[in-house]
Amino acid sequence: MTFAERVASIQSSSGSFLCVGLDIDPAKLPGHLKNHAEPVLEFNRSIIDATKDLVCAYKPNLAFYEAMGENGWRILRETLRMIPKTVLTIGDGKRGDIGNTAAQYARALFDDLGFDSVTLNPYMGFDSVDPFLKNPEKGVFLLALTSNEGSRDFQRLKVGTMPLYEKVVRAAKKWNASNNIGLVVGATHPRELKRIRSLVPTMPILIPGVGSQGGDLAASMRDGGNAEGFLAIINASRSILYASSGTDFAAAARAEASRMRDHMQLIAQTEERAKKKR
Amino acid sequence: MTFAERVASIQSSSGSFLCVGLDIDPAKLPGHLKNHAEPVLEFNRSIIDATKDLVCAYKPNLAFYEAMGENGWRILRETLRMIPKTVLTIGDGKRGDIGNTAAQYARALFDDLGFDSVTLNPYMGFDSVDPFLKNPEKGVFLLALTSNEGSRDFQRLKVGTMPLYEKVVRAAKKWNASNNIGLVVGATHPRELKRIRSLVPTMPILIPGVGSQGGDLAASMRDGGNAEGFLAIINASRSILYASSGTDFAAAARAEASRMRDHMQLIAQTEERAKKKR
Repeated sequence: MTFAERVASIQSSSGSFLCVGLDIDPAKLPGHLKNHAEPVLEFNRSIIDATKDLVCAYKPNLAFYEAMGENGWRILRETLRMIPKTVLTIGDGKRGDIGNTAAQYARALFDDLGFDSVTLNPYMGFDSVDPFLKNPEKGVFLLALTSNEGSRDFQRLKVGTMPLYEKVVRAAKKWNASNNIGLVVGATHPRELKRIRSLVPTMPILIPGVGSQGGDLAASMRDGGNAEGFLAIINASRSILYASSGTDFAAAARAEASRMRDHMQLIAQTEERAKKKR
Repeated sequence: MTFAERVASIQSSSGSFLCVGLDIDPAKLPGHLKNHAEPVLEFNRSIIDATKDLVCAYKPNLAFYEAMGENGWRILRETLRMIPKTVLTIGDGKRGDIGNTAAQYARALFDDLGFDSVTLNPYMGFDSVDPFLKNPEKGVFLLALTSNEGSRDFQRLKVGTMPLYEKVVRAAKKWNASNNIGLVVGATHPRELKRIRSLVPTMPILIPGVGSQGGDLAASMRDGGNAEGFLAIINASRSILYASSGTDFAAAARAEASRMRDHMQLIAQTEERAKKKR
């Protein structure tokens, strides 16, 4: 099964489009965990236990683990072991380097840590992506149009008749011989998301920027999915992780994840009905 | 002293423009080290001891350490402790992410590991770079035109009248209020290096791609330096690290580093004389 097929299959069986971003900042953990021997690991375990039946993916953000040094790397490895095999893992590191270096990153993230997929930065071109494409079951999400303000600085620059991010989308399509490339498109750009989906009808699209960053959830679901309504992976991090800072943090995270999952299902069903009417 | 001033000062006092890239692949270590308790650390210690009076900087490539898991992170930290304070350290990780994540990478690389500078990918724009600019003594090298084949895929695309990489160079110049931004320009693009230096007369330029990748050392020195002949940082990795695979690897690394340092000094002096004649 190729990576794109895995995404659709997991979304279909779980009934969820939600990805929880595990961006763990030790300073933001609930106060009562701070005396725990392993506060971050305990937090991750509670979040995963409370949400694993509500999500299609978890996305640990590597920066937050690196900020904890070698201990962070161990916590990341142990966190990945807690995630059921039925849920996708996305190593969000936005790496990108020349071929022999990219091969080392692929070894670290796919072989050593065992991520199902990673995010990559396209700026250095094909040979920086290629070492990640060898196994069709493992996927990459190339940054196309990111959710942040800085996406205006270069990604939207006009190259001939189209913006740079569209060049990236078209390159990704050309490089996708093994059906294991996806894209990252921020929920803060709903119009562009619609256009990008029309260019790549069968690619997974990872969509950050709903929740704390204010992106549009309904538009992300409506315009991010493929013809069958799958392949949009909607990420939320802080709004779920830090839904409560009390001892009820896991229940609060579950409530918020459940609310988002249900809301997305409703949008998907409404959209399905609207399509049948047309 | 700002980061750019530090680079010029270290190059002036050491008489060296050479940066040794510490891209340590355990599979490539000399055979006799493999039974050592800490082969990679012992290798790094030997290379640093053998070359520290010949270089202006060391550039550990993070991918190679990440491929060793939590142990690699520890080795990286201990390696950084072996480098004299008089030599610059460049954390080559090519990171780039939204502001709150970039702040975590800055924390990991500047505060926790203690790098003097890092390489960054510009694709996500200003807010992905800004958290690294807070301390004028710590520097960033933004990828402009990289040494690899894939640099043709996006970096050279025409945006209006200029290539994308020149947009990056101009943005870097605009963002450089604290005099701590530099650029990465591959030695495999000598003509473009000359043009870029004319645009940023006072920025450090990190120049990979001589040695194993075949870039032009003479052109890199001649066209990469500022008016006083400083600020071009010429990186070599594999050609020095793996100059010999025998028990004489450290002496062979020193011989190659010395040859490169001397060659660069000669080019700099010739260039200086040529300038005086004009």
